[in-house]
Amino acid sequence: MSSEFQVLATTGSGRRGRLTTPHGVVETPVFMPVGTLGSVKGVSQDLLEELGVQILLGNTYHLYLRPGVEQVRKLGGLHRFMSWPRAILTDSGGFQVFSLNDLRKVSEEGVTFRSHLDGSSHFFSPESAMAAQIGLGADIIMAFDECTEYPAEPSRVLASMELTLRWAARSKKYFEEHKSEVPWGRNHVGTAAPGCPGEPQLAGAQLEKQVLRFAQDDNSLLHSKSSDPSTGATQSLFGIVQGGMDVELRRESAFRTVEIGFPGYAIGGLSVGEPRSVTREIVESTLEHLPADKPRYLMGVGTPEEIVEYAYMGVDMMDCVLPTRAARHGLLFTSEGKISIKQARYASDELPLDPNCQCRVCRRYSRAYLRHLYAANEVLAQVLNTVHNLSFYLDTMRAVRHSIEPGERARSLSEVWSRPKP
Amino acid sequence: MSSEFQVLATTGSGRRGRLTTPHGVVETPVFMPVGTLGSVKGVSQDLLEELGVQILLGNTYHLYLRPGVEQVRKLGGLHRFMSWPRAILTDSGGFQVFSLNDLRKVSEEGVTFRSHLDGSSHFFSPESAMAAQIGLGADIIMAFDECTEYPAEPSRVLASMELTLRWAARSKKYFEEHKSEVPWGRNHVGTAAPGCPGEPQLAGAQLEKQVLRFAQDDNSLLHSKSSDPSTGATQSLFGIVQGGMDVELRRESAFRTVEIGFPGYAIGGLSVGEPRSVTREIVESTLEHLPADKPRYLMGVGTPEEIVEYAYMGVDMMDCVLPTRAARHGLLFTSEGKISIKQARYASDELPLDPNCQCRVCRRYSRAYLRHLYAANEVLAQVLNTVHNLSFYLDTMRAVRHSIEPGERARSLSEVWSRPKP
Repeated sequence: MSSEFQVLATTGSGRRGRLTTPHGVVETPVFMPVGTLGSVKGVSQDLLEELGVQILLGNTYHLYLRPGVEQVRKLGGLHRFMSWPRAILTDSGGFQVFSLNDLRKVSEEGVTFRSHLDGSSHFFSPESAMAAQIGLGADIIMAFDECTEYPAEPSRVLASMELTLRWAARSKKYFEEHKSEVPWGRNHVGTAAPGCPGEPQLAGAQLEKQVLRFAQDDNSLLHSKSSDPSTGATQSLFGIVQGGMDVELRRESAFRTVEIGFPGYAIGGLSVGEPRSVTREIVESTLEHLPADKPRYLMGVGTPEEIVEYAYMGVDMMDCVLPTRAARHGLLFTSEGKISIKQARYASDELPLDPNCQCRVCRRYSRAYLRHLYAANEVLAQVLNTVHNLSFYLDTMRAVRHSIEPGERARSLSEVWSRPKP
Repeated sequence: MSSEFQVLATTGSGRRGRLTTPHGVVETPVFMPVGTLGSVKGVSQDLLEELGVQILLGNTYHLYLRPGVEQVRKLGGLHRFMSWPRAILTDSGGFQVFSLNDLRKVSEEGVTFRSHLDGSSHFFSPESAMAAQIGLGADIIMAFDECTEYPAEPSRVLASMELTLRWAARSKKYFEEHKSEVPWGRNHVGTAAPGCPGEPQLAGAQLEKQVLRFAQDDNSLLHSKSSDPSTGATQSLFGIVQGGMDVELRRESAFRTVEIGFPGYAIGGLSVGEPRSVTREIVESTLEHLPADKPRYLMGVGTPEEIVEYAYMGVDMMDCVLPTRAARHGLLFTSEGKISIKQARYASDELPLDPNCQCRVCRRYSRAYLRHLYAANEVLAQVLNTVHNLSFYLDTMRAVRHSIEPGERARSLSEVWSRPKP
């Protein structure tokens, strides 16, 4: 079994659903926090669980560079490596290769790029990107695509879309042939030591203690029989629709990606500098051409207002660095609007960040304290700000899910927040 | 009532005791984590409580510069400002003035120094240092002293010791006249708003919610009747013994500081570059001259081995930046010795940091993951490393306390750790 998706209720175009992955259930529409390098910056896995995070995003490009795919694979895959028993999605690495590399070189075969860390040269193809994502072992992995730049000439958008379609087919072919190689279910501590010179051999008692430790912590299917490869648990590979800002090309890309056939579809190549009204138009028109019974993932959006809007349009999954990155810059989202906590006006403000929020931060600390932490460059500022912003995004999505019932209507963010929370 | 100290049991020179402060009980011997700017770097107050921290140290010099004493006082004092309902101790600012300022100028009156942040000029006297510490409102505050440099000429050590003694008397005089000004017990949210232009006036419902919020979180006497100034709860001012590395001057300093009379005594001016054997000799000889019924605080030590050793010598309180600062540099203390987690040998090591440790970090994460976080410069490395090191220090001290019973003997760190933990 790989992931399964079920639509439970609808409101107009919006849907509430359930995505069942090898590492637990994800209620949709869902916002996926970004854990680039196997960590949501500053927030421990305990806190992510407490916040109700059901699925995290990892970045293949970053993990490929550090600590390396083979390293993660040897250690049992990303779930086990970072001690995260719930679902994970990895991107294909394509977007980062395009956004972090000025010197990349694209050919039919793939992309040559330089590491942003040390300038070393690397190559990603649909096949190697699949191999990397199988080694990392996320529940949902993404086809290798070219993220078309904006603005771009019509001929360039068309050629890029065609390349992404050919790469989608190659991604699927490689995945189908290699999906059994996912590292789940192995008793890695026991099996890896003999085969890995340099790894310390574990004594019997130590080994048992260690295995017990992981088993106790595990609240998912991670180490249970049902995720053992022998029972057929595998990853799911999603396709990505491209086509620039051209409604007609988006339709064609959607149609032909669906023809290749994936258990879920993403809309890529947006939030690349285009006006917000264009994003909205492309999302809306693309969604029409995606099958209703498969999850739809809009990559790299957005503000709290936008994630609400897109959810009611029929998007099931979203991710964005905004809540975590903004938190690190002192920009906080609340039910009463944005707060820039660095401002002097908060220096004596004893109110919680968001009086309507029940997160750990709002229950305990004042704006004055948070402002002080930020102004004094204390690490705790980043930790607390990130916890709050993630809590706000997750609570927002939770409220949207609860509002999706037959006969209900789509709401704005302020309407979502003005209703008593479920 | 201010703080009260009771010796419960002894082992040789070592004592197990109970220090009852206006913000809860502190079991001694105790290690006090350093929360320089109102935050133990990277660790939330929830986690500190979970670790069993009963008393935190705050640095007057740093808090005086940011966010400023008046700011903290207006917001109800340091406990309320940082939402820490348990005990706090502040140093006098003297040590930081001496260690962070090359351009300081000492006179009989006090010390002129420049801020390490912006170079602005400031002045601390025994009186102003007391006023600052009363405004911050820690449970235990320290007399303003001169930390004698090492090495120093005998005449210089003597003069410095005499200055500290004169400053101790002035510190006590100011404190006795002003100790009722401590900010505890006020309903600050209610009283501050009208008197502070620029502060938002709280609406009735908001105010009630806010007060309720703090009351719910509070697990100490902070907002209960017994800490209301009207019932006489005050801070305690401890004296500090100086005298350089001269056993005879230390004896004299101890004798004359006790003559001035304080409810507790600190040994200052150590860990300033002298050999460890000298520190040990000075601590041991000074302890002899301090009254047995008062808490004894050794400032700024030490390694895990040292805090165990000093506890058995009869030291009741210790603080040090070592566990928190070392954590930020990837140096971790375990029951099996030190670990430098940045080393490549840990890249594939699936064991917990310390197989004998039950902290959140050791229960959940592998050395391989912690090594990756450190190597990738992830903020979570600092958070997790600090939680573990503090846990190790606190567990060590807990084990020492449990070992102090009549008829038992002093132990080394490894002996403390080899015994089944209580």
